[in-house]
Amino acid sequence: MTRVTVWNEYRHEKHSDEVAEVYPDGIHTAIADGLEEHGFDTHTATLDDPEHGLTEGVLDDTDVLTWWGHRAHDEVADHIVERVHERVLDGMGLLVLHSGHYSKIFKKLMGTTCSLKWREAGEKERLWVVEPSHPIADGLDEYVEMPEAEMYGERFDVPAPETLVFNSWFEGGEVFRSGCCYTRGSGRVFYFRPGHETYPIYYRDEIKQVLANAAEWAAPGDGPTPSFDNAEPLEEL
Amino acid sequence: MTRVTVWNEYRHEKHSDEVAEVYPDGIHTAIADGLEEHGFDTHTATLDDPEHGLTEGVLDDTDVLTWWGHRAHDEVADHIVERVHERVLDGMGLLVLHSGHYSKIFKKLMGTTCSLKWREAGEKERLWVVEPSHPIADGLDEYVEMPEAEMYGERFDVPAPETLVFNSWFEGGEVFRSGCCYTRGSGRVFYFRPGHETYPIYYRDEIKQVLANAAEWAAPGDGPTPSFDNAEPLEEL
Amino acid sequence: MTRVTVWNEYRHEKHSDEVAEVYPDGIHTAIADGLEEHGFDTHTATLDDPEHGLTEGVLDDTDVLTWWGHRAHDEVADHIVERVHERVLDGMGLLVLHSGHYSKIFKKLMGTTCSLKWREAGEKERLWVVEPSHPIADGLDEYVEMPEAEMYGERFDVPAPETLVFNSWFEGGEVFRSGCCYTRGSGRVFYFRPGHETYPIYYRDEIKQVLANAAEWAAPGDGPTPSFDNAEPLEEL
Amino acid sequence: MTRVTVWNEYRHEKHSDEVAEVYPDGIHTAIADGLEEHGFDTHTATLDDPEHGLTEGVLDDTDVLTWWGHRAHDEVADHIVERVHERVLDGMGLLVLHSGHYSKIFKKLMGTTCSLKWREAGEKERLWVVEPSHPIADGLDEYVEMPEAEMYGERFDVPAPETLVFNSWFEGGEVFRSGCCYTRGSGRVFYFRPGHETYPIYYRDEIKQVLANAAEWAAPGDGPTPSFDNAEPLEEL
Repeated sequence: MTRVTVWNEYRHEKHSDEVAEVYPDGIHTAIADGLEEHGFDTHTATLDDPEHGLTEGVLDDTDVLTWWGHRAHDEVADHIVERVHERVLDGMGLLVLHSGHYSKIFKKLMGTTCSLKWREAGEKERLWVVEPSHPIADGLDEYVEMPEAEMYGERFDVPAPETLVFNSWFEGGEVFRSGCCYTRGSGRVFYFRPGHETYPIYYRDEIKQVLANAAEWAAPGDGPTPSFDNAEPLEEL
Repeated sequence: MTRVTVWNEYRHEKHSDEVAEVYPDGIHTAIADGLEEHGFDTHTATLDDPEHGLTEGVLDDTDVLTWWGHRAHDEVADHIVERVHERVLDGMGLLVLHSGHYSKIFKKLMGTTCSLKWREAGEKERLWVVEPSHPIADGLDEYVEMPEAEMYGERFDVPAPETLVFNSWFEGGEVFRSGCCYTRGSGRVFYFRPGHETYPIYYRDEIKQVLANAAEWAAPGDGPTPSFDNAEPLEEL
Repeated sequence: MTRVTVWNEYRHEKHSDEVAEVYPDGIHTAIADGLEEHGFDTHTATLDDPEHGLTEGVLDDTDVLTWWGHRAHDEVADHIVERVHERVLDGMGLLVLHSGHYSKIFKKLMGTTCSLKWREAGEKERLWVVEPSHPIADGLDEYVEMPEAEMYGERFDVPAPETLVFNSWFEGGEVFRSGCCYTRGSGRVFYFRPGHETYPIYYRDEIKQVLANAAEWAAPGDGPTPSFDNAEPLEEL
Repeated sequence: MTRVTVWNEYRHEKHSDEVAEVYPDGIHTAIADGLEEHGFDTHTATLDDPEHGLTEGVLDDTDVLTWWGHRAHDEVADHIVERVHERVLDGMGLLVLHSGHYSKIFKKLMGTTCSLKWREAGEKERLWVVEPSHPIADGLDEYVEMPEAEMYGERFDVPAPETLVFNSWFEGGEVFRSGCCYTRGSGRVFYFRPGHETYPIYYRDEIKQVLANAAEWAAPGDGPTPSFDNAEPLEEL
């Protein structure tokens, strides 16, 4: 059974009544519940836990980590970012959600600013599936519609995704590469756009489906562990 | 000086007053004029010319071929398609425009149906630049806007582009990968979406700029010509 | 249970004692046996069967098709190639093996000549895993070694693979992109280099493992079936 | 005229007679001379210069930066790495050479360890051109051969290159992705493998050709500068 650790900054929910109303137990709880429904073994961790809840022990028991953060990216300790980075390169899957695009760990894995345009206007979004054979699109229709979403617009300053699964349309005139697959080291990384804290997006069935698909896709396999060192001498070959 | 042959089906213009009003000398003339302004040496060819205007001699003098077709794709002779295909694999650039997505040559190069959704409703389109460092985006703003366009929507059934330069937004709710780069053999292929026959799109400065950029990008270089045969015997190495 | 149809030209085995000694029941039987060991439900089909064994009924019951051919590519009927092509675009997986690089179906899917260099000298090959997190590399070491192989060398005239899983080294001085992943339509295609008819390559455990991994990877998922037609009118959106 | 700043750690040459004999004026001088022959305007900078020779002023006058380092990667100051990183994202080209794979700037741009295997045995290397239409292959034969090279072997722990131009074969049994193109932000990055300090590799005509081609390819264009901020309000669109 794939083990997912759901990480959440968990600050908006504690400081904003508007957000608390949507996610009374935190965004992490909503995400974890959705994954549980799909048969995953979940665990949650938040910024204010000791070591942000991401101890070596927790990561030892994690196949895939999901990351939601927004207003406190800078409070994530660098040594924890290093730890998570090493785990990803060693094969742990990582799902970066919505405003997590500006997290230290995502910027470190991408090598770019991960900047974008945004607008909070509760506008309509459609995530079009552009790669229907990708496992992350399993069980979906041709597009997923959000009646109200924060807009994220191009240019999204990331390396071109290895696979672009979703391409978003927004009512106000923008587009966005909303589902982006990457490989870093032996780890798989998926960026998924939806998920603003004031909209009940993580309760939607299609979103739960995508997160479950992505967790399955990002779970580590059984490939070789590369050796990085001085190779055998030439004469023995 | 880069030599561009501008190919046009040239039927709509002869049979529809509406189209003839927009392109009185044919779409090919408008495209060729735009390329001439940017310093290219152009030549035009149309479906009803002998050998569709694509004789071996013409192709000998062609660095980049542009392709516009719509209602008569089936009338393009298979042996001419083979001839163009060989030239592309040998290094000739190919710019496939708008409804050319359904041309025999594009389908042959892609290996897929090249199908898509469409709607003729004169709606607004924005082509967002998603890869600003690509030479095809030189001289552009963050997006190019068409006040009235035919809509093309995803799923666009092509292989994922090697580079996605433009991503289109449409008023009616669709998105489309509008500027797609491919390499086939030693040739470079660019698909560019805008260009319906009833809108004066090829007279627009930004569109001329994109076609000039793309022709420059697709022009053949001076790389090695691969040999495909039985290699030197093992013992001589 | 994933259903694999193993297709073989099955001519070398009938006309060459040397090949018959290595594959007395045909290459298809060896490949099918390996897949059975890994839990697949297999079926075989050969060139000389009616409709080459690839009737609509057989394809209805096929999740993944494997293709081995060499000397009789031209004898494969075009309408059967069309049929297989449509099935791939609709989601059937396709594993193209060794000299199958020159098959009609592979060339049609790639859009290029699929040419390469070759040398029959029984030289050593090492397939290095360059993407260790890819599911096709599951269960392997850092490289797979063939003590004796036919050499295939670059330039391999195919579109750049979406994922390059294996990169081959040959004793005589060449390299080759030996494990190449593609998406075409809703189907997944994997080209895998090893497999000359005079070497017992398909009996090797690592090769069976790769084919099993690839069949699993290429099996169709449950993504959306795109509609390709006139979209809903603008006014209703 | 494209302005290239050639950066060199410049330590081996000062501390090893063997290296000083090959590169008496430093590796940077040899690289800069080769670029001058191809018409570039060059400038050199080294680790022990103030600010490592990479002041804001120098970078203002730099279109493309080349980077050679090996034993003193850790001595490169983090704030200079940040400065170079920002410049690359803003459009400056970067050519990372040989042991520069372990430089701070390359690791920061890639997001991975950039590890590999190596062996110093003066063995033969062949760089096969796998993408003959790429401008970095202009003027080359099908492969470039180094009679004596340090071996670098896969797994090379980098993100899959956007374009793989060269694929190396080594006498001792390894392969390596030797010419790798990336886009990061608005900047273009090329990793090129050859170049050990004890072999006179940067004096070779084919290597000078590749570096000139790569500098031309990586030079900044005239694409749009993306804005990253709160977009226009929805109601004004």
